[in-house]
Amino acid sequence: MHVYLNGHYIAARDASISPLDRGFLFGDGIYEVVRALNGKLVEAERHWARLDRSLRETRIDRPLTLGDDAVSEIALRLLEENGLMQGHAIVYLEITRGSVSPRTHHFPPAGTAPTVFASAAAFTPFDGQRVTGVPVILAPDERWARCDIKSVNLLPNAMAKQLAVDAGAWETLFVRDGTITEGTSSNFFAVIGGELRTHPATHAILGGITRDVTLEAVATLGIAVKEDGFKVAELEAAEEAFLTSTTNDVMPVVRVDGTRIGGGEPGPVTRRIGEAVRARLFG
Amino acid sequence: MHVYLNGHYIAARDASISPLDRGFLFGDGIYEVVRALNGKLVEAERHWARLDRSLRETRIDRPLTLGDDAVSEIALRLLEENGLMQGHAIVYLEITRGSVSPRTHHFPPAGTAPTVFASAAAFTPFDGQRVTGVPVILAPDERWARCDIKSVNLLPNAMAKQLAVDAGAWETLFVRDGTITEGTSSNFFAVIGGELRTHPATHAILGGITRDVTLEAVATLGIAVKEDGFKVAELEAAEEAFLTSTTNDVMPVVRVDGTRIGGGEPGPVTRRIGEAVRARLFG
Repeated sequence: MHVYLNGHYIAARDASISPLDRGFLFGDGIYEVVRALNGKLVEAERHWARLDRSLRETRIDRPLTLGDDAVSEIALRLLEENGLMQGHAIVYLEITRGSVSPRTHHFPPAGTAPTVFASAAAFTPFDGQRVTGVPVILAPDERWARCDIKSVNLLPNAMAKQLAVDAGAWETLFVRDGTITEGTSSNFFAVIGGELRTHPATHAILGGITRDVTLEAVATLGIAVKEDGFKVAELEAAEEAFLTSTTNDVMPVVRVDGTRIGGGEPGPVTRRIGEAVRARLFG
Repeated sequence: MHVYLNGHYIAARDASISPLDRGFLFGDGIYEVVRALNGKLVEAERHWARLDRSLRETRIDRPLTLGDDAVSEIALRLLEENGLMQGHAIVYLEITRGSVSPRTHHFPPAGTAPTVFASAAAFTPFDGQRVTGVPVILAPDERWARCDIKSVNLLPNAMAKQLAVDAGAWETLFVRDGTITEGTSSNFFAVIGGELRTHPATHAILGGITRDVTLEAVATLGIAVKEDGFKVAELEAAEEAFLTSTTNDVMPVVRVDGTRIGGGEPGPVTRRIGEAVRARLFG
């Protein structure tokens, strides 16, 4: 596997991050994950816009040479160098506040070069799971107050996702003050009383690109949607539910903490939305 | 500078972390910072006990070969190899959940080796600041709900500490629901109405080793202390205030957001406590 690191395309085993990198010492970095199909990046413009927002919110200096076009070029070259110009692939991009000694909590001196890392890998869409739907579990949302920033401070997400794996589930939904916010790496929608609902894009969730695409698709389908958080208890009345994310696109949820949603099978609204979203993303 | 990485003592510039390390990708690791004086580690036993707790709470497998004695041995050898057997020094130790491909939020397969990194550096105690006292500022506590875990998910701490630097202050105190929790890398005490107070060691703060030593010293001095959080408004009535941390030991605070504490000079209670704590740590 070839990766990109600070201007160089090299074998992954030769890619060396300093242990003094603030990504390693503080989780002081941000990232994006982008799908690619047949050598074309999916919704790249929106991903790069969010990348830019993450950099601004964390006050990480964007390298002048790293405009949107440069980022796309890195992603495309990684697809090429790794033989990923056909089929589905995933591109990962991370930018940290760079490396400096001695370690200090405060930012390094102005002019310290950020660390820029990117990789690409083949991806197999979760088509089987999409047919059956997936089970999810609930866990307390113990994350910080700025979940809208796509930072690599992902320890609570990793720990909560592991709870899902331990339970044989696909994803863990976070619950804050009784309200479902989102999954560890996905957004969550439910059809409750005939109404499609999802948590609003506040600081409490990471506003997913696929979430945005879903809201747009839903509008063209004439399905009413309310961006309004809902309580765990409301979920018991849900007819349908699904996750959205870059890797899940639209994934039916058929069980929450062991309780069946709808009939325990993917519902018709989810199917319609899924088809419309995939048509927009990959059509 | 020589550092320790996964069993090897090497030049810092040769130390290479994989960009696939979960420390870099997720901030999925924990750490400790230990003082050393003349080649002797200060309160090592307590630091290693907290290290062990952090590993258990995050479910990072502790390498069998990395018992407390082994960790002390690493720290001492780094002091030796870096010519730090005289005077003050700092040892940094970090353990992450290791490196694995492909990137997944959930934990890597059982048996994946954690990454163990350690470094040592000379340290100059902040004696000048101790004489004058330091100014601090307040900022919203936006951190996660498990601040008791000493993880490297430190982005909110880094961002808040930078606010202090921007304001010409020494430290930023976090405020959650109106209550002062702690500093970005320190605990906070205040003398209010003749009573010494500090936030209790709940999940909302990182229970510092120096905080514990301070509570013990205070008991022997016959000073009453209440582990009870206090509101920002109560601080206006504070006669004295100070920070504790491994690097600050006991640091007088003379200004909070521009408002003078007591007379704007270190107070007598703080001085007595500081002397007692330093005697315990370095005596």
